[in-house]
Amino acid sequence: MRALRWHGAQDLRLEQIPIPRPGSQQVRIAVQYCGICGSDLHEYESGPHAIPVGTAHAVSGRSAPLTLGHEFCGTVVELGSEVTGLQVGDRVAVEPEYRCSHCAYCGSGAYNLCADMGFAGLMGDGGMAEFAVVPSYMLHRLPDVVTLEQAAVLEPAAVALHALHRSQLAEGASCAIFGLGPIGLLLVTLAKLQGAGTIIAVDVSPQRLHMAKQAGASHLVDAKGLTPRELRHTIASATAGLGVDTSFEAAGLQATFEGALRALRKGGNMVMVGLMSEARLDAFDAVNRELSLVASVGYRDVYPELIGRIAAGAFGPSAIITRTVPLEQAVSNGFAALVQDRSQIKILVSPSAGCNNQH
Amino acid sequence: MRALRWHGAQDLRLEQIPIPRPGSQQVRIAVQYCGICGSDLHEYESGPHAIPVGTAHAVSGRSAPLTLGHEFCGTVVELGSEVTGLQVGDRVAVEPEYRCSHCAYCGSGAYNLCADMGFAGLMGDGGMAEFAVVPSYMLHRLPDVVTLEQAAVLEPAAVALHALHRSQLAEGASCAIFGLGPIGLLLVTLAKLQGAGTIIAVDVSPQRLHMAKQAGASHLVDAKGLTPRELRHTIASATAGLGVDTSFEAAGLQATFEGALRALRKGGNMVMVGLMSEARLDAFDAVNRELSLVASVGYRDVYPELIGRIAAGAFGPSAIITRTVPLEQAVSNGFAALVQDRSQIKILVSPSAGCNNQH
Ligand SMILES: [Zn+2]
Ligand SMILES: [Zn+2]
Ligand SMILES: [Zn+2]
Ligand SMILES: [Zn+2]
Repeated sequence: MRALRWHGAQDLRLEQIPIPRPGSQQVRIAVQYCGICGSDLHEYESGPHAIPVGTAHAVSGRSAPLTLGHEFCGTVVELGSEVTGLQVGDRVAVEPEYRCSHCAYCGSGAYNLCADMGFAGLMGDGGMAEFAVVPSYMLHRLPDVVTLEQAAVLEPAAVALHALHRSQLAEGASCAIFGLGPIGLLLVTLAKLQGAGTIIAVDVSPQRLHMAKQAGASHLVDAKGLTPRELRHTIASATAGLGVDTSFEAAGLQATFEGALRALRKGGNMVMVGLMSEARLDAFDAVNRELSLVASVGYRDVYPELIGRIAAGAFGPSAIITRTVPLEQAVSNGFAALVQDRSQIKILVSPSAGCNNQH
Repeated sequence: MRALRWHGAQDLRLEQIPIPRPGSQQVRIAVQYCGICGSDLHEYESGPHAIPVGTAHAVSGRSAPLTLGHEFCGTVVELGSEVTGLQVGDRVAVEPEYRCSHCAYCGSGAYNLCADMGFAGLMGDGGMAEFAVVPSYMLHRLPDVVTLEQAAVLEPAAVALHALHRSQLAEGASCAIFGLGPIGLLLVTLAKLQGAGTIIAVDVSPQRLHMAKQAGASHLVDAKGLTPRELRHTIASATAGLGVDTSFEAAGLQATFEGALRALRKGGNMVMVGLMSEARLDAFDAVNRELSLVASVGYRDVYPELIGRIAAGAFGPSAIITRTVPLEQAVSNGFAALVQDRSQIKILVSPSAGCNNQH
């Protein structure tokens, strides 16, 4: 089969490899769609960051070179001998977090904090291939009414919903979302569904701000050319002079980190969902205004809720999909396009779109 | 009357000033004890930081020079015409936070976040004088069984209890307390009362560690000479290899800020109660381990609980009092001693101990 494999930074190869077979508790799926994530881009541009090189990941047993892609869905084609509750032909979304199942975190249900945390498609083989073999616990069967295109954005939607849960945003509360990539736009959508009263979307791209408007933002702030003080003032003006109850940092930049903190009212909390290395924190301000910084990583227990909401017609995450490309074009029209063109939000790779043979 | 007034950095003056008279909603008390706080020291060494100079504070109407001291208690000697519920002769503790009473924060009960937040003794006249005039809402009448010496440490105990409330520390949970000054030691005491299972006290002073042991710490860690890795390892060893559920940063240093974060298990939270300016945050680690940083400032609604606990004999905060000096020696044997001698924890100034005349 064909698979897009990471060999090193700037070195993704479309290769012909043997079709993987499922172990007793695994399932093989024919991949319909696999989204390209910011972390995939990061591995492409300057990896390895999360990808294991030399040493195998504790749960997956894999190391580079491996198949990229953790935002995928498809159809069950082969079941391991011990797998129950699934049938060949089932349409499924993949929740790609590995679990060791025996650490203290897995034991308490916080499997996104598993001591051997990792993702299929980063720490093991993922979905940018004709077929993927994953542990059966990763699979969620889709109701007929949910399309595979919708299922393709469940993974970033799960990141956004977990971040929203971490925020404890109350009904009618105000929030500001810094960075309108896929996660930021999905945060706008989900905050709206949750009943947030004021949703302030902040970015430097007019196109992304326009998409945030369509997703339900009540206020748009183009931060380009604004001083930190002007940005803070603009947000305060939208919230009776106070600042927002909650902000989301979804860009992973020092400027958005500071902006998201300054946007808060006293006692407010900022959810950190963007990845960055070292941040400079105005700790004096944080203590004096009694702020909270709440990090969010991955997700747990949110796929059923999201699938149910999509099935009920409450939201259509496919609004963020800006392009779908076949596996052959994943690098040229996928990875490269995302690096160069800020109007691209979520690009799906469709391994089934090119050659459909099973060898 | 005699009052210790801040005129500038390194310029505290014991002055003779007129006895202040209470306005209609104010009360004059004869001050029995007034503790010296780290923030008083900070103003003494390198102020002004919080003290208003030139512009009057919005609630107190005062600016420098003003009488220092916000940790005080005493006896009611004169009541404003509209004050109810108090009588001359009542023994009272002062909760020194000013409230404007009309901002959104005061309206919601979060008066420690008042838009015009401030403390008597920093933003207005405080307790290092024979008499102090304060708004009646600041006063808590003491039951007979609570001594004024105990009441003198209610203010730092309130800071510690509010920080503990912010932490949401569950019964049986583990915590680590970085920095064993008055707040850190009171955190040990209160965490123990709250039923924390493991209380790890961290400092570089053997004397302070010894006091933490007496306050109820289950583990003592002398951080002197330990690398960050060794410190992390020592704390992990005490918590089944995981790290603590909650840490308290009560020193306001980059090293303790980092140490308190590294001490956490995945998903744990750090309460920031120490004051520092800029902190360097390992945001990558914070997100990947889904940590929370929760700031705590001042207190709200905790004095009645603390007074009740002291009355019930549950704890004796006077254990942290290492010296009591008359007003005349406040600088020489108080402020200067705290700067030079780390075995000093809480020094009380007793304005009534010297000359007791009322003019
Ligand atoms: Zn991702
Ligand atoms: Zn695990
Ligand atoms: Zn203080
Ligand atoms: Zn107020």
